[in-house]
Amino acid sequence: MIYNIFKVFNTDDERKAYQKKIQQTLGFKPGAFEYYEMAMLHSSATANQKKGKIGHNERLEFLGDSVLDLIIADILFLQYPDKDEGELTRMRSVLVNRAQLNYIANEMGLDKLIIGNFVKNILPEDVKGNALEALIGAIYLDKGFAFTYKYVKKKIIEKYIKFQEVMHDHRDYKSELFMWAQKNKQHIRFETVSDTGKGEKKRYVINVLVAGKVAGTGEGGSKKKAEQLACKNACKKLNINIK
Amino acid sequence: MIYNIFKVFNTDDERKAYQKKIQQTLGFKPGAFEYYEMAMLHSSATANQKKGKIGHNERLEFLGDSVLDLIIADILFLQYPDKDEGELTRMRSVLVNRAQLNYIANEMGLDKLIIGNFVKNILPEDVKGNALEALIGAIYLDKGFAFTYKYVKKKIIEKYIKFQEVMHDHRDYKSELFMWAQKNKQHIRFETVSDTGKGEKKRYVINVLVAGKVAGTGEGGSKKKAEQLACKNACKKLNINIK
Repeated sequence: MIYNIFKVFNTDDERKAYQKKIQQTLGFKPGAFEYYEMAMLHSSATANQKKGKIGHNERLEFLGDSVLDLIIADILFLQYPDKDEGELTRMRSVLVNRAQLNYIANEMGLDKLIIGNFVKNILPEDVKGNALEALIGAIYLDKGFAFTYKYVKKKIIEKYIKFQEVMHDHRDYKSELFMWAQKNKQHIRFETVSDTGKGEKKRYVINVLVAGKVAGTGEGGSKKKAEQLACKNACKKLNINIK
Repeated sequence: MIYNIFKVFNTDDERKAYQKKIQQTLGFKPGAFEYYEMAMLHSSATANQKKGKIGHNERLEFLGDSVLDLIIADILFLQYPDKDEGELTRMRSVLVNRAQLNYIANEMGLDKLIIGNFVKNILPEDVKGNALEALIGAIYLDKGFAFTYKYVKKKIIEKYIKFQEVMHDHRDYKSELFMWAQKNKQHIRFETVSDTGKGEKKRYVINVLVAGKVAGTGEGGSKKKAEQLACKNACKKLNINIK
């Protein structure tokens, strides 16, 4: 697969200098630089390119997204043998959400490699996360799955994702609060503060009361979510130590 | 990873006979039969099992779903260099939809391997497709990605999915019909025959008229879908050759 890359460099030396930066950022020597150059090429850079071969990173992003999904699925599957598929799915969506990908792309320095035409030269956050997915697609095409798995696990996930912290936030605060209450002989109840909107605009505001006093408030699109957030805030306020 | 498999076999010989059937169905010798046994174990078979380790195929299904998604993404990426990521995503969803997975599972004979307690002993269709995804997860765990890729491509996708036909069916019949009409100086219009139900039960029945005569009828949950089907039927009726 040779791509018809849009000519973004004026001289061969310029391109070589760019390839050197890619290699430094990756920490390994690519087999085919074309994939990585393509991964860093935002569609805005190729807007004037004639149609036909697609010369920007969105196809690689499609591929890389699937590669990353499988790697995370594999890691979670092995690491959490007692979690069911629903929990694994939720954990994955927390681990690799948009904000997380944008953050990692920044940390890796992809913002300095991305090529595109942006308003006032400001790189939108999502462009960075998308470039990271495309980069993972490039590594997969260049080096295969086994290499990509090891690289992504060690150099991206374990390096930048605070696994325990993210998973921690995924805890069931409601159960924790109830367990704490039982141990400490406290009575817990919820009260709905407001219940507004319909369908997608549905919002609940719910208080959780411990021994008759508001210990936390939560807001969400379902009662369950609002209660969870209320309990999370209550756990913080009451200094309940979540394992 | 050793699983705490629910005891579904009365004797060792019974289990060995079952493992032989698995091997015959797969066409290769598994390294660890446990994965494949687990993949064929529907949650209904383990409903009375004590909580803790999860002894049915739903976690494997989560993993296999991601493996299959990546394999299809890779195949489409290489096979269709001119399609953008939106088209690739749509193509993938057509290739591995629920009905397609259920069909393949039947063709492979997974229905004869699945273990579970079903009402009147009738295996629900989706249970079969889910078992296929779990099986792909099992192959991945047992043999790794490279083996799974080759196996799924050759023994599942190329064998059971009529790639060209599915892709063909993915054509935009409405555009084709309009292009044909323009070329042949024919007038096209739609008429809504019925518009019933609400939300998920919403149904449209729409006719497409060519030169004032009904050329095709379509039904769907959105106007767009009903129109597409109407145009598909019209293309057939008018012998319009879809490339």
